[in-house]
Order: sequence, then C-alpha cells, then structure tokens
Amino acid sequence: MERLASNVCFGGEHRRYRHRSAVLDCDMEFAVFLPPVAVGREPRTVPALYWLSGLTCTDQNFMQKAGAQRRAAELGMAIVCPDTSPRGLGLPGEDDSYDFGTGAGFYVNATREPWARHYRMHDYVVAELPALLESELPITGQRGISGHSMGGHGALVCALRNPGQYQSVSAFAPIANPSNCPWGRKAFSGYLGDDEQAWREWDATLLIPEVRERLPLLIDQGTADEFLEEQLAPDALVDACEKVHHHIDLRMRRGYDHSYFFIASFIDDHLDHHARALGLK
Amino acid sequence: MERLASNVCFGGEHRRYRHRSAVLDCDMEFAVFLPPVAVGREPRTVPALYWLSGLTCTDQNFMQKAGAQRRAAELGMAIVCPDTSPRGLGLPGEDDSYDFGTGAGFYVNATREPWARHYRMHDYVVAELPALLESELPITGQRGISGHSMGGHGALVCALRNPGQYQSVSAFAPIANPSNCPWGRKAFSGYLGDDEQAWREWDATLLIPEVRERLPLLIDQGTADEFLEEQLAPDALVDACEKVHHHIDLRMRRGYDHSYFFIASFIDDHLDHHARALGLK
Repeated sequence: MERLASNVCFGGEHRRYRHRSAVLDCDMEFAVFLPPVAVGREPRTVPALYWLSGLTCTDQNFMQKAGAQRRAAELGMAIVCPDTSPRGLGLPGEDDSYDFGTGAGFYVNATREPWARHYRMHDYVVAELPALLESELPITGQRGISGHSMGGHGALVCALRNPGQYQSVSAFAPIANPSNCPWGRKAFSGYLGDDEQAWREWDATLLIPEVRERLPLLIDQGTADEFLEEQLAPDALVDACEKVHHHIDLRMRRGYDHSYFFIASFIDDHLDHHARALGLK
Repeated sequence: MERLASNVCFGGEHRRYRHRSAVLDCDMEFAVFLPPVAVGREPRTVPALYWLSGLTCTDQNFMQKAGAQRRAAELGMAIVCPDTSPRGLGLPGEDDSYDFGTGAGFYVNATREPWARHYRMHDYVVAELPALLESELPITGQRGISGHSMGGHGALVCALRNPGQYQSVSAFAPIANPSNCPWGRKAFSGYLGDDEQAWREWDATLLIPEVRERLPLLIDQGTADEFLEEQLAPDALVDACEKVHHHIDLRMRRGYDHSYFFIASFIDDHLDHHARALGLK
C-alpha cells in the first residue's frame, strides 16, 4: 500500500494510496479521509463510511466536491472512496464509452469475458478493500456505505447482499432498478451476459423481496435530475419496499439536479444518518 | 449576459454566465452563488463576496471545491467567482506556461503589448463585473473580496487600491510580495515591463505604507504550503503592516498545504469575517 499524497483537512487527513488488488488482478488507487481523532498523537480507530461514486468518476470527485470532511471530522468518522473500475488494462472496448468499462464498473462481479478476470468491483469493495484498510489504517470493522447514481446502486446492492457487513446504507440519486434502464441493461448485458435471471442479484429493486436483514434505506433524489425518468426509477424501489414493509425514506428534493451541488447540499444529513448507526452520535 | 448553467445548491442557486466584457475586449465567463433569500418568490438583494482564484483556475474551482455555499446560504451572502484571465485570444505566448497568460492574469492592468488591450483584470474585477452584477442580479453594492494565491494577491491589491469599494478583505496563502518572488517577477515584467517602479502599485507589501483606508487584513497560510518560502512571503507583508500599524491577522495553520483542502477547512471563518463587515451577523 503506497501513499501517493496527503493533505491536512479540517484537522484530519485526506490521503491517496495505490495498492495491488488480488481480486481485480491490477493496481488500484483509492482515497481516504481520517478525522482528527484518528491522526493525533494517540490515534483512535474510527468507523468508516464507504462512498461509491458514479459513472466517469475516480476516487477524487467526492473528496474534492462533496464537502463531507467538515462534518466527518466533527463526528469522528473516516471516509473511504474507491475508484469506479479497474483502469488501463487494455481490454478491448474498455475505453469506448463513458457508461461501460473504465469508470463504469457498476460494482458487480462480471461473469462474461473479457471482463470476468478484472471487473469484480463488488468483491473488491465489500471484502478486499475493507480488510486492507482495517489492517493498515486506524479504521474499525463498523461500516456504513453510500454512493451516487451508479454508486448509489452499488451501495444499495452491497448492503442488501451482505447482511451484517454494514451498519447503515444510503444513496443519492441511485440507479434503483438497473435491469429496467438503459445504463443498467447495457452494463449488465456486458458484464453478466444476456440471461436476465443473472441480473436479479445485482438489482436493488429485485433484491428487496429476498433480503433477510432489513437495513433501513435513506435516499435523496432531486426532482430536476436530468436522469430521473429514464435511468433512476426510485419509485420502483419504493414500491418493492412497501410490498414487504422494508423501511425506505425517499426524499424528493425540489429543484435539485444530478450534480455534486446536490450531493453537497445533503451530505451532512447522510453523514448524521450513518453516524447514528455507527454509534457516533 | 447569457446564462450557461444553473444548479440548486443549499436552497440557493449556483449559476454560470457568459458576457461580453468591454474592459477586456472579449467574452468572459463567471460563476455566482445566490443564497436562498435572493432566489425565493420575493427575492431580496444581498451583499456579495468576490473570490479571486489562483493560477490555472477558472470560475469553477472555488465553486466546486471550497464548500462555501453552505455557510453563504445561512448568512445570506452571494459569492462571485470571475475567471482568472481572458482566454482564447490567440496572443503570441498566451498558452506557453501555467504562470503567465491564460489562467494567470494576476489581476493587474497590463501596460505592455501585446497584453495591454485585453489583460486588464483589475478594472474588470473592481469595476465592470460588479456594475454588471449589481444591475442584473439581486446583489447590493456591499462587497467583500478574498482569494487564493495569485487571487489572494489580487484581493489584497484590489482592496488596498480602491478605498470604499470593499467593506472587507481576506486571503488564503496570497502572493504577498510579488515584486520579490519568481511568479510575481515573471508576471509583472511580462504585463508591466521591466521598470520595477511600475510594479509598486500592484504589490500589497509595497502598497501598505501608501494606503489611506486601513481595512484590516485577514490571512490564513498553511505551514506545509509547498510555495511558502519561494513565492508567498507573508512575513514581508506583516513587517510592512507593523511599521505603519495597519491591522493584520496572519494565522499560520500547522500542517496545511496550498490545496483546496486547506481552503475548505477555513472558508467558514472567512465568510464570517466578511459577513460581520457586511452587516450580515
């Protein structure tokens, strides 16, 4: 685990690292924010919020644009931002479009070649990365997970598929029913193949009836989001939750769009949501 | 004045505009944040903080990375971010280096050709842009000014040269004595010529003994700033202020660097400083 950069921020530290991922069979970069209590002379271990970013993003978008460090520093919470896919593998077609391949791993474990060997972002995010961080940094095994758009989908699916792994989950403008939207159908057919039965375990709306652990879902969604109708479909997820009495709090935010200006406006609410579940307030 | 984009943010609006600048004789883009009270059904006019960015920046860096909108929304303060230079003029050498020409206007009025016709960022920032905004948007003539690095130099010089134009001034890691550092000497010789007497009116440290209005100076500076020794020289400015009893509050911030992670950590303090002078708290 090689440290690439470090910046003091709100009394804590923002750091970037590179490491060899066995799961993805390539080098990966990620960012982490450690709050002041985790970097002082007598550092304490702290719980971590894992943030999964959207299409085209790297580990840096959230760290630079969401303004989350202020509240995380106050709460004593770490933030971990993985990248959104493996990069630079030279796979055919990996850089052909913004919504598939590089920057668009969709947090699934691919089964279709040539993606299956490297594009296993689900296992990377859920297992390999936390194990590394909890061994190398002052981070506990108490975890929350959140994300935006493709990463909101990823956060919901990671939490729903892995009972006990996360104490809390939330999402901003998630792709809530990817089997039924152009972004999701393109990604799933590419990574998983054309048998739609295999897609079901990667679709939050379709997972809801199956899950045992009823982690409450907190979702913010802008009403002026340019992708709301065609790609995001939060209503389908709410319908699925209501059928099985799975708690969901979908907050439609009037006038907000899909940008980081929207995320920044409500990130403190989400940090507080995770902090309560993580015993920080 | 053409609106290019608009995003709801903390209940207010972030907007980008393009307009024809008579002073710069070219099209310019800028960004503005209007707090909730200025965009509601019965919008009120609000004071504005002008933010001058550093080398290589556009109007977008501060808006995306500083996290200033949260506190500005609470305070009822607008934020205005001009670009850092004219762009795309085709002047010989304008794109040859990151610290001269495009993205590096240094907020001076150039006198040397071929720059003199367009590179008049001081007059643009101090006069033309506020006049436009105060006529077209719900913004009053109460103004604060701040900035970072090259823009911190710009903010200090704009305030010191124009008594009564600003109610408050602050800076993050300003180029405090540009006549005596490589960035400043390159810019001043290029824009103003080799006669160093002509540089004096664009150097905050050299202006201090001359000014009539004693606006207090608030400056934050990171101790781990990679440009501190060679380029920034805040001690020279403090020495100049102490000689004439000009109030200056230089806060050395242990471990912080030159990045927006540093700016974000202390921007609320600066917004509060300006808010007090602007009658907002």
